[in-house]
Amino acid sequence: MGLVIPFDEKSSESGLERLAALVAQDMNRVNQTILARTGSDVAMIPEVAKHLISSGGKRLRPMLTLAAAGLSGYRGEGHVKLAAAVEFMHTATLLHDDVVDQSDMRRGKLAARMLWGNEASVLVGDFLLGQAFRMMVEVGSLACLDVLSVAATVIAEGEVMQLSAAKDTQTTEDAYLAVIRAKTAELFAAACEVGPTVATRPKAEIEACRAYGMNLGIAFQLIDDALDYGGQSAKLGKNVGDDFREGKITLPVVLSFRRGSESERAFWKRALEEGQSAEGDLENALALMKKHRALEDTVERARHYGAMARDALGIFNDSPWKKALLDAVDFCIGRAH
Amino acid sequence: MGLVIPFDEKSSESGLERLAALVAQDMNRVNQTILARTGSDVAMIPEVAKHLISSGGKRLRPMLTLAAAGLSGYRGEGHVKLAAAVEFMHTATLLHDDVVDQSDMRRGKLAARMLWGNEASVLVGDFLLGQAFRMMVEVGSLACLDVLSVAATVIAEGEVMQLSAAKDTQTTEDAYLAVIRAKTAELFAAACEVGPTVATRPKAEIEACRAYGMNLGIAFQLIDDALDYGGQSAKLGKNVGDDFREGKITLPVVLSFRRGSESERAFWKRALEEGQSAEGDLENALALMKKHRALEDTVERARHYGAMARDALGIFNDSPWKKALLDAVDFCIGRAH
Repeated sequence: MGLVIPFDEKSSESGLERLAALVAQDMNRVNQTILARTGSDVAMIPEVAKHLISSGGKRLRPMLTLAAAGLSGYRGEGHVKLAAAVEFMHTATLLHDDVVDQSDMRRGKLAARMLWGNEASVLVGDFLLGQAFRMMVEVGSLACLDVLSVAATVIAEGEVMQLSAAKDTQTTEDAYLAVIRAKTAELFAAACEVGPTVATRPKAEIEACRAYGMNLGIAFQLIDDALDYGGQSAKLGKNVGDDFREGKITLPVVLSFRRGSESERAFWKRALEEGQSAEGDLENALALMKKHRALEDTVERARHYGAMARDALGIFNDSPWKKALLDAVDFCIGRAH
Repeated sequence: MGLVIPFDEKSSESGLERLAALVAQDMNRVNQTILARTGSDVAMIPEVAKHLISSGGKRLRPMLTLAAAGLSGYRGEGHVKLAAAVEFMHTATLLHDDVVDQSDMRRGKLAARMLWGNEASVLVGDFLLGQAFRMMVEVGSLACLDVLSVAATVIAEGEVMQLSAAKDTQTTEDAYLAVIRAKTAELFAAACEVGPTVATRPKAEIEACRAYGMNLGIAFQLIDDALDYGGQSAKLGKNVGDDFREGKITLPVVLSFRRGSESERAFWKRALEEGQSAEGDLENALALMKKHRALEDTVERARHYGAMARDALGIFNDSPWKKALLDAVDFCIGRAH
């Protein structure tokens, strides 16, 4: 039942490596900053923060900030703290998400809330968000503070939207897109936007980087949602079917529901809305997704946004930075092997 | 068993009225800002936010920001958004606190988490925090952003500290003070500090306002903790003994434990640490507090910090603003009737 996407494996595997190599030196400083800024006399804070931060996310978002700053010819020091702030905002969101979703696992490890309780997850998330803003203030760019503070509210709005739409099988593709734009893509967009912003580049370049990040983020989340029904569990650190068990309405479900028969829709309603799970439900869901090509078309949609991300960078001259950012698009979509 | 403090009732009742009258016009604008900034296309956000915001807190913190700006001769417009940001930070903390404490009630109404769930409380709190930072960015004072972003992290640290110290009857008075400085007094201090900061007053005045707020905040929390064992339930919107039932170690407990016999300490340990509650436990706790004058001396400690708050304002010339801020100290302590 694995999802197989016809895609040039080599390019997708090398994609993030090129980016990683380009930003390697700066990423070292970002990682040092992250470590230093999770410090607190209150012992539980570094414990919880390090549990999550050391559990090996790809650090994709801070890499995007560094690369967007590089693309913009930035020569200052602010991009390091901004990248660390972006990662802290992401980490805070993960901590709060786990409480909201009542998740047991995160990145292949027990979720922080399982080890320290919901309380610690809420409060350490708040601490990291506070530290993110402190770092932005230290950089001193009100324009960057504007971008990232707007992102913080939009992300929260997206999460609440998702909550309101939860377990509603009638959710439209547009409503689903509005949620993932806000809860995921907005931070990708902001992460990219602060690069040219801190470099005080012209508006057109700032908007191009923002558009690149926004579309990349949408593609990223679409692939994530497809992988939840067919990815390799170990790599993602979560199990196939987690979204299904939580009654999350993602695009594979939206497409299967809308393309399905009346009896199939009754199945989706029972399984996702009424929370009456039965033996074999996940297998049935996967079979229906295969029948309606829901996973393949979710990836196809991701390709569409990937293409938009690539075109957004069209106004920039060729450079190693631009090449790395273009490759990152391939990486995000190529994960769906 | 009610707590009776020998205090001039008239001055304590008029205390907040003088302050309220002085800032009335600005507070109208703060309230309009608060209302406008809880707006969102995501319907649940204004619902949850308005439930809490309209439930009638005293708005003490934003009043302090306005008064500190008045004391500093500030002539601009930034103080209104800063005051609204301070109230949003406070509201976000309340929403997250209720999840952490698993509280049923808040300000005499059902806690938001009881009506919309923990998820909404976490996420709407995040939204309000994001909006708070957006408003600060709009004011454009990096110095104020610095003060309030530091406060955001310190408050979260204080909450985690409280979590770590929870149910530990060996908690010292100093450890308790460190918690309430961080979780409560820091926001009072920041609320007062941004007044002279946005007015770009000299460092001595900024520090004086900060010290006033810090000591006022400590006094405020001490009285709150005393009232939990003897206040009028309706006024506070919570029930006598809530802290006791949650196993919170506040100063009345710290003093009773340290002044008590071995058998009394065994009682506190059983009731607060081991969570084995028995019929009559609260009555017994109240009797022990009376025996050891724990509530009276908690109020006495509050008076000490109140006196420090008053003296901190000594460098300012007499003015209606100064008089109102001095009266606010009387109000905070005079609540303990």
